[in-house]
Amino acid sequence: MTEQDIHIEKIRIQMEAAGADACLITSNANLFYAVGQVVMGYLYISRQHEPLLFVRRPVGLSGERVIYVRKPEEIAEILTKRGLPHPATLMLEGDSITHSEWLRYENIFPDSKPINGTTAIRKARSVKTAREIELFRQSGKIHAEVYRHIPQLYRSGMTDVELSIEIERAMRLGGSYGIFRVFGQSMEIFVGSLLAGDNAAAPSPYDFGLGGQGQHPSLPVGANGTLLREGMAVMVDMGGNFTGYMTDMTRTFSIGKLPDKACFAHQTALEIQNEAVRMARPGAVCEDIWQRALDIAAERGLKDCFMGISQQAKFVGHGVGIEINELPVLGARSQMTLETGMMLAVEPKFVIEGVGAVGIENTFVVTEAGSEKITMLDDGIIDLTENR
Amino acid sequence: MTEQDIHIEKIRIQMEAAGADACLITSNANLFYAVGQVVMGYLYISRQHEPLLFVRRPVGLSGERVIYVRKPEEIAEILTKRGLPHPATLMLEGDSITHSEWLRYENIFPDSKPINGTTAIRKARSVKTAREIELFRQSGKIHAEVYRHIPQLYRSGMTDVELSIEIERAMRLGGSYGIFRVFGQSMEIFVGSLLAGDNAAAPSPYDFGLGGQGQHPSLPVGANGTLLREGMAVMVDMGGNFTGYMTDMTRTFSIGKLPDKACFAHQTALEIQNEAVRMARPGAVCEDIWQRALDIAAERGLKDCFMGISQQAKFVGHGVGIEINELPVLGARSQMTLETGMMLAVEPKFVIEGVGAVGIENTFVVTEAGSEKITMLDDGIIDLTENR
Repeated sequence: MTEQDIHIEKIRIQMEAAGADACLITSNANLFYAVGQVVMGYLYISRQHEPLLFVRRPVGLSGERVIYVRKPEEIAEILTKRGLPHPATLMLEGDSITHSEWLRYENIFPDSKPINGTTAIRKARSVKTAREIELFRQSGKIHAEVYRHIPQLYRSGMTDVELSIEIERAMRLGGSYGIFRVFGQSMEIFVGSLLAGDNAAAPSPYDFGLGGQGQHPSLPVGANGTLLREGMAVMVDMGGNFTGYMTDMTRTFSIGKLPDKACFAHQTALEIQNEAVRMARPGAVCEDIWQRALDIAAERGLKDCFMGISQQAKFVGHGVGIEINELPVLGARSQMTLETGMMLAVEPKFVIEGVGAVGIENTFVVTEAGSEKITMLDDGIIDLTENR
Repeated sequence: MTEQDIHIEKIRIQMEAAGADACLITSNANLFYAVGQVVMGYLYISRQHEPLLFVRRPVGLSGERVIYVRKPEEIAEILTKRGLPHPATLMLEGDSITHSEWLRYENIFPDSKPINGTTAIRKARSVKTAREIELFRQSGKIHAEVYRHIPQLYRSGMTDVELSIEIERAMRLGGSYGIFRVFGQSMEIFVGSLLAGDNAAAPSPYDFGLGGQGQHPSLPVGANGTLLREGMAVMVDMGGNFTGYMTDMTRTFSIGKLPDKACFAHQTALEIQNEAVRMARPGAVCEDIWQRALDIAAERGLKDCFMGISQQAKFVGHGVGIEINELPVLGARSQMTLETGMMLAVEPKFVIEGVGAVGIENTFVVTEAGSEKITMLDDGIIDLTENR
């Protein structure tokens, strides 16, 4: 059984639960998951028969499952010719594909009932295999190694954008493929986010942990050209795309020493992280972890600046995988329970006026013995003027 | 009348042609076009009344048109309260939004007939305003300036990925926001593509002009780690995202001298470019330009390596704008006619076995007097070992 066979089997289990006879996978992220590579094509998974990969591009693929087509409409006839039944219920990726695509695929099988399988497939993807966890470990190692060298990239007089550019380059030289894969087309970001000073408080349209004004109204998130100055917190949160699986990791840097309130908030973030990790065992309910995080922030008198100020995120962590925002969400109203093999980014953060964002983010794998950190680097505030 | 009012008026003209009473715009690219910034929200454009911007995020926007909502379902009631009619026909972005989003918006107005307005809005966007053309000119200047300095980034012994990383950094330092906005969720790329040697012939699933194997099966396009060697062609095609409007520009570099066949193919590409530009006047039919390009490639005995080898693109140019692949397409079966103010990327390219890709791409604005180049840099092959 290949790795992709395991992934397909996990999708089949979800298909069975949803009462789907077949599933047509066409989005890049799900194709990479189930095929092992991105193609322009359509993976047809039936409950009983071998999966078939209908491909338009690239030319030159081979394999028993590969069938070249010019258009998806050919799929129905090919199944008929092979004596394969058409599905009574067909699962499509309703939260990923466009409405036009949905109509087109639905019309391939006019007698089938289409159902939206996005959440089912996301659930299948949320629990990682041993091989996927190994890819995460590889990614976590590189990610931490790049972050370890960030102080060497800092020069006095830089803007946040300039420092971000040097970190982006270091990520790429470390092996990052660059793109930041995210679920939901309205979420856009380049490589990741660097927030310095009061820009950390700027609200953004995107549903990331924190916002930032960004460089332009066409991409209002992250660094905005702030000059890095003594006493500022500089939060670095880049997506680690080194293996096809995205690690998520944040470290707080400082220009010189930060005020006591910022240091206290950072310590509180570490306390929340530790408590979340303690709770994050198989069977734990996601919302409970979020609620506990909120309670600790409130107990420490920091509720008003937890996960933002004027606009506060309503989660303290999320699944990661091929996309940066996979299931589950450690947030309000999330009733999912954790399972062994889930991969979680836990990111308690505070925004301190006049200073910037402080806090932490690490990627963890949920195991029977508890959650294990895979982005191994000290969690403390790193002074950019001292660690050169 | 603000710039965005002009854009909205252009959409209204298309709504009228399509028989739509209202249009609900929710995708990032169209929101940036019609609002001037990306928001998490919904722009409601009716034919008769003032447009209304229903916003979920970010907090803090103001203006007559801005109405904060927690969910899009509130829109219907707000219109009713204001005495505004519900639309008989509602235009939605069927080729951009997900099927789930379509269902949700459709259900806001259960008595309306929804129609897919993506092509109509893309048509509105295809003809640029004076202000948009000015933003393109600014972008073209920076784009050319970054390319002019590429020889200084080359070091002997580099791989294609390493050179690409230095160019990406130079683009960012020049002011690029980084992300490569593309229409169609199955098209993914990071900043742009650099193709060296035979990697230029590697077919890709994506519908770009040329392919390349890429660094990983999760992103199979562009540079693949090829060591840059004497006699190789190195094609640089990065997206210029400096103003929210994307210029598209390709230059062919070489390591030392290229063989005669490659130089001849490059000259042929320039000949095709010149011919395309001569033809690209208001009223010209897009397909005719493509056909003429094919004919020239065939006349020169280069048809088999035009726009790829094993997999050949069926276009020689395309509109550019907020997204890199706007209307019109200078390709097979494209009956659109050119209009003054359209912005075109013309990109005739050849792949020479054992050498790499040669050819050219520039961005042009269509004017009454003909097409005008806005990415001003010499079109010849630039030897990386000579121009340091």
